[in-house]
Amino acid sequence: MLKDECDKLAVVAQIVECIPNVSEGRRAEVVESIAAAIRQVPGARLLDYSSDASHNRSVFTLAGDMAAVKAAVLAMYECVIPAIDLRAHSGEHPRLGAVDVVPFVPIEGVTMAECVALAKDVAQEVAARFQVPVYLYEEAAANPARRNLEDIRRGEFEGLAAKMASEGWAPDYGPSAPHVSAGASVVGARMPLIAYNINLDTNRIDVARKIAAAIRHSSGGFRFVKAAGFELKDRGVVQVSMNLTNYEKTPIFRVFETVKREADRYGVSILESEIVGLVPAAALLACAEYYLQVSGFNANQVLENKLRGIG
Amino acid sequence: MLKDECDKLAVVAQIVECIPNVSEGRRAEVVESIAAAIRQVPGARLLDYSSDASHNRSVFTLAGDMAAVKAAVLAMYECVIPAIDLRAHSGEHPRLGAVDVVPFVPIEGVTMAECVALAKDVAQEVAARFQVPVYLYEEAAANPARRNLEDIRRGEFEGLAAKMASEGWAPDYGPSAPHVSAGASVVGARMPLIAYNINLDTNRIDVARKIAAAIRHSSGGFRFVKAAGFELKDRGVVQVSMNLTNYEKTPIFRVFETVKREADRYGVSILESEIVGLVPAAALLACAEYYLQVSGFNANQVLENKLRGIG
Repeated sequence: MLKDECDKLAVVAQIVECIPNVSEGRRAEVVESIAAAIRQVPGARLLDYSSDASHNRSVFTLAGDMAAVKAAVLAMYECVIPAIDLRAHSGEHPRLGAVDVVPFVPIEGVTMAECVALAKDVAQEVAARFQVPVYLYEEAAANPARRNLEDIRRGEFEGLAAKMASEGWAPDYGPSAPHVSAGASVVGARMPLIAYNINLDTNRIDVARKIAAAIRHSSGGFRFVKAAGFELKDRGVVQVSMNLTNYEKTPIFRVFETVKREADRYGVSILESEIVGLVPAAALLACAEYYLQVSGFNANQVLENKLRGIG
Repeated sequence: MLKDECDKLAVVAQIVECIPNVSEGRRAEVVESIAAAIRQVPGARLLDYSSDASHNRSVFTLAGDMAAVKAAVLAMYECVIPAIDLRAHSGEHPRLGAVDVVPFVPIEGVTMAECVALAKDVAQEVAARFQVPVYLYEEAAANPARRNLEDIRRGEFEGLAAKMASEGWAPDYGPSAPHVSAGASVVGARMPLIAYNINLDTNRIDVARKIAAAIRHSSGGFRFVKAAGFELKDRGVVQVSMNLTNYEKTPIFRVFETVKREADRYGVSILESEIVGLVPAAALLACAEYYLQVSGFNANQVLENKLRGIG
């Protein structure tokens, strides 16, 4: 007679995160008008936004279901296109367009495949409504040469017309030449990025750098780790600073344990770790499962998930 | 210019869990009518219910905000009082009343103090509307002698009239004699209980029993652990089976690490652990923080919490 009302009644919450990067970080009134445009979309939540004057760039973080996030991104373009002219833009950060990069990230009740579909849908509509050419990247990329943002952005706005005319660089959507003032956009889907640092009980920067090299993908480490070693001079210790770009395939606990083993090889111990900014609950729950050697656990056993019909 | 829309807009979700134990586990039609009475209360979610014929008892698990959970409990009493007569009830499980025990459990956006107040509010209304005497227990108990459910229930329904007339056993609410058919109820507030088992790579039951004795409160172990050793005969291994009654004060990781150390003393290793049923997310997030040595983390960094304005 065991019943499960929750499974029957569940309305699965759907959360897509979107982190548009816009090429304006100096004119506060423009940034505020973009924030206002996002906020007025029903169902879209502007979680955070910040600007960097030397980069001349702003990053917005918003979330909602697929329909709300799509509407918010289009509202953002409506605001950006007349307000930002890349011909008069300078800044330290590389950029291709007024709306430079638009990643969609699956958080809850939504698959990566659905985020890829959403990216393509938004890309098509951006191209049609604003005449802005769009490249798809990361998980949404049409081919492997287009996965990497850095490869797409190489040459920047100033080199874009020549690049678009060259072999293999026709955009995925929209006109085959740059928008005169807005350039092009890079739209795609990716896993949530976790900013994760581990502080070591030593002032030896060479140890932090060796460990960073051991664990990062670019020098032979884990597939979804970017890492560098830094000094925290005020504390007299060093840090292995990381971006974890796919916590399902390269989980936090495996990275932590590897750093711990590598540090041990130099006679160094871990002081502490820190998670910078937001982290999906699933990334931490996986750590609890690992260390407690939990078998047969499923996300629906987390009371809050069950109540919300997730998992 | 960092903004946090979420903090401004947050409407904190409130989740109280309630697990009424009712003295009927054989007549399916009565159990179903109770389930239906709970389900029809707006905002109340019946998460689970199960019956045991030999115990002649059913356990309902429901959740919602304080108002919804209160309304659901009162609706349950409306259904139970005319349907269950303890004078004709028998079963293996000790019981004092038709609605035997009603614990309220803080899950999210609600404090223990609020759950205690809710327990008293419901107790008062049950006494007034149904003339059922109510004892408060656990965190809601008026004095230490009334904390323990077993102490209150000793003597059962059959001994209740004599007990209520004796020194120190006047009920906290309602008449000073039992309800003729419904006895009395025990209403209170407690932390969520986590059913947690650790399986050991040995068939030596003495090892499981020694470890259980080492960690449980009753024989000198942790304050909020109940534990016993069992054989899993089909697998040829043994299990330390536990109830963790306050995961904030006696966290899962500390129990796990202690079992691991104790097992090691007998040359035995941990095969796996298992969480039976539901667990609050916070209990597992605390494990991730512990093992990853995370410093300065707060619940609002969990993306899902931030989106929902929790933490």
